[in-house]
Amino acid sequence: MDNKRLKKQMDFILEMDKMKSIMRQTYLANGERKENDAEHSWHLALMCGILAEYSNEPIDVLKTMKMVLLHDAIEIDAGDTYAYDVAGNQTKKEREQKAADRIFPILPEDMAKEYRNLWEEFEESKTPEAKFAHVLDNAQPMLLNDASEGKSWREHGVKKSQIMKRNARTHEGSEAIWEYQKEIIEQNIKKGNIIDDM
Amino acid sequence: MDNKRLKKQMDFILEMDKMKSIMRQTYLANGERKENDAEHSWHLALMCGILAEYSNEPIDVLKTMKMVLLHDAIEIDAGDTYAYDVAGNQTKKEREQKAADRIFPILPEDMAKEYRNLWEEFEESKTPEAKFAHVLDNAQPMLLNDASEGKSWREHGVKKSQIMKRNARTHEGSEAIWEYQKEIIEQNIKKGNIIDDM
Repeated sequence: MDNKRLKKQMDFILEMDKMKSIMRQTYLANGERKENDAEHSWHLALMCGILAEYSNEPIDVLKTMKMVLLHDAIEIDAGDTYAYDVAGNQTKKEREQKAADRIFPILPEDMAKEYRNLWEEFEESKTPEAKFAHVLDNAQPMLLNDASEGKSWREHGVKKSQIMKRNARTHEGSEAIWEYQKEIIEQNIKKGNIIDDM
Repeated sequence: MDNKRLKKQMDFILEMDKMKSIMRQTYLANGERKENDAEHSWHLALMCGILAEYSNEPIDVLKTMKMVLLHDAIEIDAGDTYAYDVAGNQTKKEREQKAADRIFPILPEDMAKEYRNLWEEFEESKTPEAKFAHVLDNAQPMLLNDASEGKSWREHGVKKSQIMKRNARTHEGSEAIWEYQKEIIEQNIKKGNIIDDM
């Protein structure tokens, strides 16, 4: 059997193992340690299956799941840029494009194209699937931050204005989940976990 | 807005965060540490999207992805039972049923039923989706073991007969992936990472 195609797919699957070593700034719900990109992506895929009914527009759930499973793959080369890191976010785009140029072509050509396109679609955040993927990507760390008593917010002195700016378009993906998030934000302002600067 | 349903779904999503703390016996590809259930499940979901074409029978990819994302959820209560732990595997079924009775009902009733059924279907391993999910569940640790120079196999003194027994039905899910796995097994016997007792 000619298994060159399968070999390329397996090589990519192994390369992706590195996502388990890319650390994020969000703590687990129990506050014991920070989570990594693989854990975060698993959580988003799980949320996608459970919360799809709250997307403002109908979505292709499988496509959205594939999108969230690899939306951070480029961080294997580009690293995780914390949402509220101003300097890091200025060079983010260039670093991530370069990473995508190396990483996706490990796959067979047709799949490299499919997954690169899914990543570009996520970044552009225009389609219903990409908008909903961003809702999940913003809601998940908020759930964990809330559960860990605002550990990461407090460490970084995060302000309400920063969270509102980052979530400026969350309502476009899901009004219902954005309502839920707003309650979490208000509760954590009361607890002193988020700085109220608005 | 009545968000009782959403609250239950979010509670379940938070409860699942505990999967990030359930450790498995398999090392990351770089051998630096063992992986946890969330990382393992993320890897399976990713593999599901990339390797679905190798299923012997056509599968519903979204259903299979949902299945692998939560196939180990019951380990939050029941713990991970190592594939080659004889004593542990004797009490596994009872511990896991009890865990399922507590965990899935955190979800709203319709979803609790959907996910419990997906887990039961995985355990029974009769449908094309469940058979393919088992292929992934067996192939993924083999890929990592191979990449980490057989670290976990060597630690546990794993024999070829044990691997063959565990994979007795892998060919039913995917002939192509089983062929690929057999090559890995033979290579690791040559390297002395797996004991050749057959």
